[in-house]
Amino acid sequence: MRKSAVITIGNEILLGKTVNTNLTFLAQELANLGLPVDYSVTIKDEATAIHQALRQCWEKYDVVITTGGLGPTTDDITKQEIASFFGKKLVFNEEVWEQVQKIFAARNMPTPEINRSQAMVPEDFIALKNERGTAPGLFYEEGEKSFFAFAGVPVEMKHIFLTQAKPILEKKYGTQDKVIQRTIHTFGIAESALAELLSDFQPPENVNFAWLPQPGRVDLRFYGTDAQAIEKVFNECYSRVQTYAWGFDDDTPVSVLHRILREKKLYLSVAESCTGGLVQKMVTDLAGSSDVFLGGVVSYANEIKVKILKVKPGTLNKYGAVSEECAREMVTGVRDLTDSDIAISTTGIAGPEGGTAEKPVGMVCFGFSVHNDIWSITHIFNGDREIIRQQAAEFALLNLIKYLQGHKF
Amino acid sequence: MRKSAVITIGNEILLGKTVNTNLTFLAQELANLGLPVDYSVTIKDEATAIHQALRQCWEKYDVVITTGGLGPTTDDITKQEIASFFGKKLVFNEEVWEQVQKIFAARNMPTPEINRSQAMVPEDFIALKNERGTAPGLFYEEGEKSFFAFAGVPVEMKHIFLTQAKPILEKKYGTQDKVIQRTIHTFGIAESALAELLSDFQPPENVNFAWLPQPGRVDLRFYGTDAQAIEKVFNECYSRVQTYAWGFDDDTPVSVLHRILREKKLYLSVAESCTGGLVQKMVTDLAGSSDVFLGGVVSYANEIKVKILKVKPGTLNKYGAVSEECAREMVTGVRDLTDSDIAISTTGIAGPEGGTAEKPVGMVCFGFSVHNDIWSITHIFNGDREIIRQQAAEFALLNLIKYLQGHKF
Repeated sequence: MRKSAVITIGNEILLGKTVNTNLTFLAQELANLGLPVDYSVTIKDEATAIHQALRQCWEKYDVVITTGGLGPTTDDITKQEIASFFGKKLVFNEEVWEQVQKIFAARNMPTPEINRSQAMVPEDFIALKNERGTAPGLFYEEGEKSFFAFAGVPVEMKHIFLTQAKPILEKKYGTQDKVIQRTIHTFGIAESALAELLSDFQPPENVNFAWLPQPGRVDLRFYGTDAQAIEKVFNECYSRVQTYAWGFDDDTPVSVLHRILREKKLYLSVAESCTGGLVQKMVTDLAGSSDVFLGGVVSYANEIKVKILKVKPGTLNKYGAVSEECAREMVTGVRDLTDSDIAISTTGIAGPEGGTAEKPVGMVCFGFSVHNDIWSITHIFNGDREIIRQQAAEFALLNLIKYLQGHKF
Repeated sequence: MRKSAVITIGNEILLGKTVNTNLTFLAQELANLGLPVDYSVTIKDEATAIHQALRQCWEKYDVVITTGGLGPTTDDITKQEIASFFGKKLVFNEEVWEQVQKIFAARNMPTPEINRSQAMVPEDFIALKNERGTAPGLFYEEGEKSFFAFAGVPVEMKHIFLTQAKPILEKKYGTQDKVIQRTIHTFGIAESALAELLSDFQPPENVNFAWLPQPGRVDLRFYGTDAQAIEKVFNECYSRVQTYAWGFDDDTPVSVLHRILREKKLYLSVAESCTGGLVQKMVTDLAGSSDVFLGGVVSYANEIKVKILKVKPGTLNKYGAVSEECAREMVTGVRDLTDSDIAISTTGIAGPEGGTAEKPVGMVCFGFSVHNDIWSITHIFNGDREIIRQQAAEFALLNLIKYLQGHKF
């Protein structure tokens, strides 16, 4: 099977200032093309390091991709090193220069002279048009091997990859070695309990089996090139874990929720305290959310809970804002305010301050309203503020999903 | 100067299913300790690959860290490979086993037998206590060199690093080679325009200068080990770009906004349409947000804009929901509803559908209300739905910040 290597060039990633999301994107795309990434290295924007990484990868892999280091500014030496590694000269490319000027014209700006360097392309390389920025992508091939270089800005890299590199790769290598993946998403069972449940479950040699524990849930993945074998194992595993499964493959809590609400023609509203807007942000991450989501309230301060959501001051006094009682009043409040079919509420202690022995950091109360059913639950999450909020938002959606999957309307 | 290497072990990252945030965290921490990451490699959970990466890194670097592959499930072979690379046997560690059982006891669960493998530790290695999960960290040293292995789950890795690995590194290596970084955050000027503004600006040899273009803004970073030289260059650069600077170093739009609002004792509220809760989520990302933020409304559907925010139906009919007129009514609506000093509103087309020639995808109208000043602006963002929303939320915060930085109250 053909394999790829990705070289990420950038001091910023090695300094921890940027997260390498480019690798994630390229890895997904290349796996789907049957050219899975086998190796990835992150190096500094330095001549020796670039040279070494290119030598190591170009020798061993069919497809080598670099990202980063193609900007117009002075710290970018990648293009010179690439040209030198392949023994090519840099030559001025009129077409690229025109495209760079076009980008600036569209922004109603004159093209700064410094951008002329963007039009320098190693000879025998093909410049890949960049409509989102000034650094063209670069493509070079030697027999069966392919080399690509992209700018590090994710939106530019993705654009050039999808519009030009991907078609080149599809045409050159076909898709017969496509890696097939099937995933079961579970919720509500710990990794080790799931492992015990599957302790005597042994996939055949030609199917890879991976556990992906995430905070609060576990994904089970099967992958390889034998579609039939994968399907068989996948179904066998699913029959064992069905109770805990909420989705498959590329499903996300949000995509599953959208699908259910759209099918059942139900509208959602949300009232959030500790999650501060995150639940609603997630629900609207997907296009078409206006079909299933009306809106909601972020009632961070108690006065907002009382004034807008009609939570009773007595409830706040007696039980506190972080209580199932308050969560219930928030959820009925937002349901009535928006006239929605379904509503979710969250109120909790995201930390790091504000916890007590009785109500520790990580404790979150949830309210749910589905037609005439109203209920509330409490869960304690571990982790820092961000993880607690993220898990709480996902927990709210997954609980609603499991309820909706188990009920007819 | 001492240098580190990070080895990430995990098929999931090479398949693009997980983003490598562990590297980001470790890179920041190690740079601060004067042990900057010089090289990072991501490999499969396979014996040969693990062995090769260990050989390559252990020979060349002072500190080598692996993350991933230490779970109890069957696909984790990392610990055996580490033991074999260093020529050690795995031995059962009673203390680790007790800690694993404690973790399960705290969850009111019996300890699954499969977790006994977690208590196997290579001889001469020190097990680092994991209070967030079952896989202990591992530490080994040979003379001046240090090796660490951590589980891949970010919350566990961070916990073990901060509580145990960091003190070991501080004690062993001191902090004399600490990398010093200073960053200027700019907004409202394109990368190339900034480059022209700084075209004759040349930092000295011992100060590294990096451009970090991000969607909608550019960071300028100076780093090295000579604190005085860095400070001098930093100040010189700042005096040139002052108009566009909104913060320094670890400042984020949210941290700067919190600081200003707290200083001025002002409370914020937010009304969001296209950003769907993201602005409020960002504002509440930081602890202590209840000092500066009351809450707000996500008015995704037009009925919610009218019913809750009192946007006039006539405004929606005449100008549409994506209009400066609507943004102004949303912002005064949420201000009145919450009785806040300051308010922000967003309404736009996040895409990918819904654009027209007159109102393209990416067009977002913003409303601002600061005491008696009310204004609105329109901006067109490029990118996919996620990037448009992210940029729009940040744009809203940065515009408010630039206004507040320029006005006395």
